[in-house]
Amino acid sequence: MMGPGPSNVPDEVYAALGTKTIGHLDPYFITIMDEIKAQLQKLIKTSAKLTLPASGTGSAGMETCFVNLIEPGDDILILINGVFGMRMQDLATRLGANVDTLEFEWGTPVIVDAVKKKLDAKTYKIVAVVHAETSTGVRNPVAEIGALLAATDTIYLVDTVTSLGGIDVNMDGWGIDSLYSGTQKCLSCPPGLAPVAFSEKAVAALKGRKTKVPNWYLDLTMIIKYWEGHTRAYHHTAPVNMLYGLYQALDLILAEGLDNAFERHLENHRALVAGLEDLGLQMLVAEKYRLPMLNAVKVPDGVDEAGVRTALRMEHKIEIGAGLGPLAGKIWRIGLMGHTARPENVRRVLAALKTTLAR
Amino acid sequence: MMGPGPSNVPDEVYAALGTKTIGHLDPYFITIMDEIKAQLQKLIKTSAKLTLPASGTGSAGMETCFVNLIEPGDDILILINGVFGMRMQDLATRLGANVDTLEFEWGTPVIVDAVKKKLDAKTYKIVAVVHAETSTGVRNPVAEIGALLAATDTIYLVDTVTSLGGIDVNMDGWGIDSLYSGTQKCLSCPPGLAPVAFSEKAVAALKGRKTKVPNWYLDLTMIIKYWEGHTRAYHHTAPVNMLYGLYQALDLILAEGLDNAFERHLENHRALVAGLEDLGLQMLVAEKYRLPMLNAVKVPDGVDEAGVRTALRMEHKIEIGAGLGPLAGKIWRIGLMGHTARPENVRRVLAALKTTLAR
Repeated sequence: MMGPGPSNVPDEVYAALGTKTIGHLDPYFITIMDEIKAQLQKLIKTSAKLTLPASGTGSAGMETCFVNLIEPGDDILILINGVFGMRMQDLATRLGANVDTLEFEWGTPVIVDAVKKKLDAKTYKIVAVVHAETSTGVRNPVAEIGALLAATDTIYLVDTVTSLGGIDVNMDGWGIDSLYSGTQKCLSCPPGLAPVAFSEKAVAALKGRKTKVPNWYLDLTMIIKYWEGHTRAYHHTAPVNMLYGLYQALDLILAEGLDNAFERHLENHRALVAGLEDLGLQMLVAEKYRLPMLNAVKVPDGVDEAGVRTALRMEHKIEIGAGLGPLAGKIWRIGLMGHTARPENVRRVLAALKTTLAR
Repeated sequence: MMGPGPSNVPDEVYAALGTKTIGHLDPYFITIMDEIKAQLQKLIKTSAKLTLPASGTGSAGMETCFVNLIEPGDDILILINGVFGMRMQDLATRLGANVDTLEFEWGTPVIVDAVKKKLDAKTYKIVAVVHAETSTGVRNPVAEIGALLAATDTIYLVDTVTSLGGIDVNMDGWGIDSLYSGTQKCLSCPPGLAPVAFSEKAVAALKGRKTKVPNWYLDLTMIIKYWEGHTRAYHHTAPVNMLYGLYQALDLILAEGLDNAFERHLENHRALVAGLEDLGLQMLVAEKYRLPMLNAVKVPDGVDEAGVRTALRMEHKIEIGAGLGPLAGKIWRIGLMGHTARPENVRRVLAALKTTLAR
């Protein structure tokens, strides 16, 4: 799997997924929950107490952050340069927020000066941005936007679905207040869980709500009582085996070391880009804004975009992704996420592309 | 595991969970999705096209049914005789519904005549009830309530989390319009997925909404485009490995045969009750309303309720459940769900209880 996720999964994680289920209130399971929380805090670089995996895929993480923080009529600003920024807009609008947006061309990053102007003109309860825009392969300047918000009351909400585990994510260092991710990208665990973290500022906003969270399943004011403290009040039945898988996947990443994992993603990305350019292909995104784990490649004129993907899947057993929205038919998306980011995979996809494009 | 869920999981399901992940848009995966849908339709006894597993645990199933059907101000009636009826009330209220309730003593069933009176007095958009109330071990008269609603426009919404796979659930035969379940009870798959089904009447209500579903993640108007038709539009990344597990679990149930599975639950339940009575213990629920898969046993005076559960877990490696709400400290809940409903488990729990209570 060399698409935009899911990524390849290490054998140890498969073994963990198939480990015997125990009760979600069993004391032994609760020690695993505590360890997963500590692992996630290391990975996200945060001391935020409210750090846990929500019981759904990455989009449930987005839903969790927004539904817990938004009350009807809240002013929020969403920075959009791809599918996942648009999804934020749709989701926040459904929750009754007053949504302003700043849009940037797909394939280019959010421009910090434009954000600054917008923030000078109006105060927002929440500013939201996607760190690694999976639909375009662009890295947004999350640290710089955080600096603009540092001395304000605004809650800074960041999507790290595709970035976490592949490039640096520094929640506390960058002033992020609410963050979500997914397991099936650079964490190399199958899809099914969405790590989320809330800073003290975000928790204060949650506790200060005038209305109940309009989503029982994802209500963190209740879920936190299951993930913290002595009583461990039952909320919903946790997805026990998925949590085994995440526990093992996080252990592998922390054993490798975050810096080593980031370096591995970068090296394989560089080798892939060099190989693609040797084949005469061009990248969509300018070099300094490229994500190592999601490589958007322009489809050359006259080449059958879908035909190439089908040939890769059928003849070479390699899955790569298509473009979405305005980029449909115009790019391929080659993922080097987590366990997939290895030299042999780079070589395989380059060889397969070479054969296929030569026809 | 002999509590209120999760239940024991067959080895074949563990093996399926650890099978190699493939892409959620891979054509082979889509054939598995189609087969899961057909399996669920057989299990639920429905021809409802909108039948699929939602990407969350059982409570996400409840959230899915309510959030897709309720619009603010809708009149809905919830029949309550336990924790899960109360959860329905909380959830529907958060969504802005105008909620009426009819409450019955915990441990006793919903009384059909009382429902009839309520329905004669007021017309509701939705009437909701829990089939198998996991908190008390009571089977509610779902078919009889359905008969009251048969000639009306009211949507009949039923929680089958604990019943499905252990006792008969006949969606089309009983006039159910919206139903949800969970994988970790009588389906004997680890927690993580929530089968849901919507009748044509429920789909018409969904399509006729004046407002967008206020929950992006669980919006069936979008999810259906991923589960149906030719295009298979990406919505959220499906929990691929959990779906492998469900596919295998459903295959085992259908291979055994539904009637055989129901009979196995009943026989083991009868053996358990006989053994409990031999130990001088009493059941909470009157015989004709008892669930075979969830046995609520009264804690005798002077016995340390939590101490017995701890001893069973520590010394006999058996998990049983505690009472919830007004029944906390007053009952134990012994599950005979799915793969757990076997004579050797009945014998083990009876022997362990005998030893523990004799002290």
